[in-house]
Amino acid sequence: MVFHYPNGKKFATAKQNKNKGNSNFKKIIYSNRGMTLEEDLNETNEYYLSMNLAVIHKKPTPIQIVDVHYPKRSAAVIKEAYFKQASTTDYNGVYKGRYIDFEAKETKNTSSFPLQNLHEHQIQHMQQVLDQHGISFVILRFSSLEEIYVMEASILITFWNRMLAGGRKSITKSEVETTSYKVPIGYQPRIDYLRVVDQIIEKAQ
Amino acid sequence: MVFHYPNGKKFATAKQNKNKGNSNFKKIIYSNRGMTLEEDLNETNEYYLSMNLAVIHKKPTPIQIVDVHYPKRSAAVIKEAYFKQASTTDYNGVYKGRYIDFEAKETKNTSSFPLQNLHEHQIQHMQQVLDQHGISFVILRFSSLEEIYVMEASILITFWNRMLAGGRKSITKSEVETTSYKVPIGYQPRIDYLRVVDQIIEKAQ
Repeated sequence: MVFHYPNGKKFATAKQNKNKGNSNFKKIIYSNRGMTLEEDLNETNEYYLSMNLAVIHKKPTPIQIVDVHYPKRSAAVIKEAYFKQASTTDYNGVYKGRYIDFEAKETKNTSSFPLQNLHEHQIQHMQQVLDQHGISFVILRFSSLEEIYVMEASILITFWNRMLAGGRKSITKSEVETTSYKVPIGYQPRIDYLRVVDQIIEKAQ
Repeated sequence: MVFHYPNGKKFATAKQNKNKGNSNFKKIIYSNRGMTLEEDLNETNEYYLSMNLAVIHKKPTPIQIVDVHYPKRSAAVIKEAYFKQASTTDYNGVYKGRYIDFEAKETKNTSSFPLQNLHEHQIQHMQQVLDQHGISFVILRFSSLEEIYVMEASILITFWNRMLAGGRKSITKSEVETTSYKVPIGYQPRIDYLRVVDQIIEKAQ
């Protein structure tokens, strides 16, 4: 079972995550390329960490907690809570001393990338990161095509502003192709986005 | 009511946070200096953000979600979840392009700072951040004395290793004084730790 919460992301419960810890189960998923973008990125980040290349983590899902029970002799149980909208991006960390900050989004569309699953708050956050000379981008995955792109935040913001000015609510596939870096899907790491970050750093120097 | 969860931190539910949105309530707390270190840091970070000085946020509390209900025509409700131990530090972000990463801890002790409310995972994370040339530290608050110190991660790790080698399980107050930067408590920002970060950056150059 896969839950979808407000922003359309899949949400896996603890039990499901446990199943995935089983290596056979994982292997099947793996060979089928059935992994979500989040799973691919988590594996990539684990690889980067294990190789001392970068320290980048996904932030925990923001939750509004309303009610907590404290049973005797056992762990506190959250009995009522709600998903909150993220006010920042999902991933951040450090690479060669530089601050790295990004959001990851996937679509089944093949001709364009809809802007609807990004939020105003996240775009604002990206602009703030750029103002502080951090490196910010969005990883876009066209899941039906198995194509992954890294689009710099400054470019994304241009398309966002076009939408705010009454323009189209998506980025066409060819716009993505001409403005972004295509990232080949590999085995280890799965999504080697640091190669793109190297190019972004080099360009800025 | 204040809840304490496994690592001894206070946890405020949504209802309580709502009350704090009331400005009178906030003012009373404020003048009494009854704010927690977390509240002081959140205000400080909001101030930094509003002045375009830095983009630093507290990460959401990590939660293990076990059961979610999807009532018709209303938001998804988390019905069973547990607090997870954090594997990284609580705060991170960007300042002048540099990656900033820290943990914040307070004690009512007046003669020493116990190491027990830090976790092995967090210390490892700090070492990883240092390896990537990030800026990492811990903000220590002696709440009874109203004194706040910034201790660089490299120093903290020295005391941690002393403990692992069988030495004392705390850092004496005078050790804190001689190895760390004292941060004056102000009005706005409350805890101006970026002044210390400036010194750390300068020292490294």
